Amino acid sequence: MPQDDRIHPSLAGFPVALTLPVQWGEMDAYGHLNNTVFFRYFESARVEYLARCGFLEAYERDRIGAILHSTTCRFRRALVYPDTVQVATRASSAEEDRFTMEYLLVSLAAGAIAAEGTGIVVAYDYRADRKTALPKDVRRLITELEGW
Amino acid sequence: MPQDDRIHPSLAGFPVALTLPVQWGEMDAYGHLNNTVFFRYFESARVEYLARCGFLEAYERDRIGAILHSTTCRFRRALVYPDTVQVATRASSAEEDRFTMEYLLVSLAAGAIAAEGTGIVVAYDYRADRKTALPKDVRRLITELEGW
Amino acid sequence: MPQDDRIHPSLAGFPVALTLPVQWGEMDAYGHLNNTVFFRYFESARVEYLARCGFLEAYERDRIGAILHSTTCRFRRALVYPDTVQVATRASSAEEDRFTMEYLLVSLAAGAIAAEGTGIVVAYDYRADRKTALPKDVRRLITELEGW
Amino acid sequence: MPQDDRIHPSLAGFPVALTLPVQWGEMDAYGHLNNTVFFRYFESARVEYLARCGFLEAYERDRIGAILHSTTCRFRRALVYPDTVQVATRASSAEEDRFTMEYLLVSLAAGAIAAEGTGIVVAYDYRADRKTALPKDVRRLITELEGW
Repeated sequence: MPQDDRIHPSLAGFPVALTLPVQWGEMDAYGHLNNTVFFRYFESARVEYLARCGFLEAYERDRIGAILHSTTCRFRRALVYPDTVQVATRASSAEEDRFTMEYLLVSLAAGAIAAEGTGIVVAYDYRADRKTALPKDVRRLITELEGW
Repeated sequence: MPQDDRIHPSLAGFPVALTLPVQWGEMDAYGHLNNTVFFRYFESARVEYLARCGFLEAYERDRIGAILHSTTCRFRRALVYPDTVQVATRASSAEEDRFTMEYLLVSLAAGAIAAEGTGIVVAYDYRADRKTALPKDVRRLITELEGW
Repeated sequence: MPQDDRIHPSLAGFPVALTLPVQWGEMDAYGHLNNTVFFRYFESARVEYLARCGFLEAYERDRIGAILHSTTCRFRRALVYPDTVQVATRASSAEEDRFTMEYLLVSLAAGAIAAEGTGIVVAYDYRADRKTALPKDVRRLITELEGW
Repeated sequence: MPQDDRIHPSLAGFPVALTLPVQWGEMDAYGHLNNTVFFRYFESARVEYLARCGFLEAYERDRIGAILHSTTCRFRRALVYPDTVQVATRASSAEEDRFTMEYLLVSLAAGAIAAEGTGIVVAYDYRADRKTALPKDVRRLITELEGW
């Protein structure tokens, strides 16, 4: 997914930011975007980040994959169609076998933050069927993306 | 997915029938089940049918898979939460490389048909990357399921 | 949803065309966009069309709403993430109480049509709780949009 | 949604527990239930709880509605089709204008917990357009449901 250069100022400093149009059918019976849609947006940012830090390749090459260990969302503002959102993510910390991501979701219609979230991603060795250390390349690319 | 013995009379004669609870979040901003949800229910019945006629096994064994060529839905009645639906499917005809499925969706709250649909499933040889004939076992099992 | 000026040549002549990024999570266990997602895309185009022809306003003003009577999809090409699609719609005919829409879905990655569909939209008087004639304004705007 | 009497022992003590069949189309390209589906299941339990504690009625009567302030999920086990899950919820604490819910999701195929979650629900006065105290009836019913 190509990144948008015209990102909202709130998202400055996030290495990955996507621009996504809100679809009418993402609203639920309360007339607002359903809570699961926020996690879909976070996921889209996460997948882009995993591509950027080489985690998708690590899976293709060594069957070391990224597993979502846990995730959270703090809803700040109800979203409605029509709108366009920007969702950004960055890694806030890394440990031996995992790293923590932060998500920020902006409504362009409101010009304001709609939600904040987090996710913990764990490295998993699908051949050995157990958790494993973050691949070295992945760790290096995260460090570069984040300027650590 | 286990089949329910207490199926609605409209669904008599269908070899596959599933009972599914409607979830609140499947409603859209009009307060009715979104049209895509009807296709999700049809899909659940189709997958069960593909399991029953050996098509899922054919893919595991020979990489002959079932591809959805086209599908239709005629909406008869708006659905709302809370409700429980029953979705049934049967094959209405088969040709060399495909068969046609009929779907029927019943609202138990209304005791009435909510939608009818169709789907055409085509056999695809994933190794040769082209359409192929229906596997013999699949054809035989469809014939048995349908009492042709 | 703003329309994109750089639409695929296949979509020339369609009064409504949207550009939508494919999201990773729209793929199912076969690694392709799930069939329900095609109907979500069609719906997004339909809602934009209903806005353009005054049907959303008719509901706000007179409780004359647009109901999806039936819909179809012919899948031409499997879609995968990453990709961007364009989905366009036009009215192909209108009757007293309904009109028929055509949908066309293009994969920009493939530069080719991924799916074609249809939908029949019926006018519904929510106060009287029965089908009704298409509102005059709506009929006029459809005629204008389509150049009939 | 009717409650199931044969609930998994892990869910004993939860006043609300639903039994839901996993649908094939809820799996994503990794062949596991997508993370958003866990939040859909939590939502289904939450809506049932809101019905039970009178919050849906409070909205109909006084436009005091329940807003999801934040939610979390800790994924314990990947889920695949076919399976049936049970999702249960209870209130763990209540404050002036909000209460905290706990969710537990069990895979019947595995006979084990698949996920745990939380959600904070805030009372919102839609007429005054601001947060408000939990309606008295709601607070009383929660206290009864939880045996506080």
